[in-house]
Amino acid sequence: MPQLIWINGRVMPLAEAKIGVEDRGFQFADGVYEVVRIYDSKLFALDEHLERLARSSAGILLTMPMAAAKLAGEIAALTARSGVAEGMLYLQLTRGVSPRGHVFAPEPHQHTLLFYVMPLDPPAAAPPGVKLHRVEDDRWQRCCIKSIALLPNVLAKNAAAAVGADEAVFVDHGVVTECAASNFFAVIGGKLVTHPVGAKVLPGITRQILLELCPSLGIPVSERPLRESEALAAEEMFIASTTREINWVSHWDGRVVGGGSCGAVTRRLHQALRERVTG
Amino acid sequence: MPQLIWINGRVMPLAEAKIGVEDRGFQFADGVYEVVRIYDSKLFALDEHLERLARSSAGILLTMPMAAAKLAGEIAALTARSGVAEGMLYLQLTRGVSPRGHVFAPEPHQHTLLFYVMPLDPPAAAPPGVKLHRVEDDRWQRCCIKSIALLPNVLAKNAAAAVGADEAVFVDHGVVTECAASNFFAVIGGKLVTHPVGAKVLPGITRQILLELCPSLGIPVSERPLRESEALAAEEMFIASTTREINWVSHWDGRVVGGGSCGAVTRRLHQALRERVTG
Repeated sequence: MPQLIWINGRVMPLAEAKIGVEDRGFQFADGVYEVVRIYDSKLFALDEHLERLARSSAGILLTMPMAAAKLAGEIAALTARSGVAEGMLYLQLTRGVSPRGHVFAPEPHQHTLLFYVMPLDPPAAAPPGVKLHRVEDDRWQRCCIKSIALLPNVLAKNAAAAVGADEAVFVDHGVVTECAASNFFAVIGGKLVTHPVGAKVLPGITRQILLELCPSLGIPVSERPLRESEALAAEEMFIASTTREINWVSHWDGRVVGGGSCGAVTRRLHQALRERVTG
Repeated sequence: MPQLIWINGRVMPLAEAKIGVEDRGFQFADGVYEVVRIYDSKLFALDEHLERLARSSAGILLTMPMAAAKLAGEIAALTARSGVAEGMLYLQLTRGVSPRGHVFAPEPHQHTLLFYVMPLDPPAAAPPGVKLHRVEDDRWQRCCIKSIALLPNVLAKNAAAAVGADEAVFVDHGVVTECAASNFFAVIGGKLVTHPVGAKVLPGITRQILLELCPSLGIPVSERPLRESEALAAEEMFIASTTREINWVSHWDGRVVGGGSCGAVTRRLHQALRERVTG
């Protein structure tokens, strides 16, 4: 069966779906997106993702083209039809096609709304280790918006790949903010430390779930800016995202960190997240 | 005649040209662009634009898909065929279609290369006045790359339009950098002052031509960071771009600036630019 896409209300093979050259998503990165995990044929935390989509959309002054409940129904229908049990749903919303110009027309906006499903490997039983590559955080000041203006993230992640690392970690004037496509966490004195969401940090859905799990696990949390020197001396470091779940950090710019093995707090959080997913 | 587009070597009506959903330009803003002015059916400063395109492309580690001379020939042919005497050519180059993922494949890259012509009004005999709206410069640190990751510029320019202004001017920690789609200049003590190109300022082609014209006009130039307070007290302010040429600044956040009329240095530079274009 070909990979299917839902695009502006029509379902067709992904390879046949096309975008207009003057789509503002293509010419101006004028759009937002979401990635939702599919476990056992079910969409995980879909409501949370659609709430964030609405916030991202509002952040770029773009009205949602349909109510969340209706969108959720369309997404569920395509996911069921895809036959994918373990995978992800990619959703993108742009301000649609109009003659090229920076200023957008008043509402109602044109929209391009699309989503499609991609298979992924089933989640790992234990957190995989990852190598981080440090990159100066050169991104814009509104990273809390999940926009498609991802070129800085692409360049950072490619710089990481070029040196054999798995992910880029952004450092902004000595402060660790987040990674190119995941949030960053450290365990310091038994406390989970992560940068607050805002100008430089996306409100990750997995991040939020982990912070919600901490109290019942007895893990104290501190949302605060974290200096690079603190991170490097931390007992544990890990990263988290919808597609990665939790990965413990084994290397930082080639240097072994966190004692070279997955730490106890990381492991407990990974276990709790797995239970949340399967429970 | 329908508006024509050249896309990956084929010429077709613009409305029929389509982009793949997984074009990296659409999903990651992974691309660069140029806007070239057409005067009297001729492409103005095409070589300079293609040189900048090559630098932007190198800046995002994207190889050019064809030699500049061949590209210039294709552009000239489409421009002639368009029948547009006064207008602009829009060119966009992306890393093409591949399954979605931040990390791009090693070379040779896929490319999407396209260009098309849009008509514009003939240039004004005297510089038009424009109102600027001040916006905090929240963009990334590599604005010298003319990338399609334009969402911050779109939002700034829309904020300007929402208050009846013509253009947004970015201020970065008290320093005037550039505008959403043009470079910024002030005349202070008879000297032309503009921010150096780099992290926050695009190497504008019109900017460069103006700086080259200054010596023969006896206008001293200072490329240096310019504080907002200095700009507001300047004798003259103007902005410049390929499509605007030179516009003098009449208002800054609703406040009349530069004495409320086009200044003498601005007028001389506009005249010299017009002679360069027509000569």
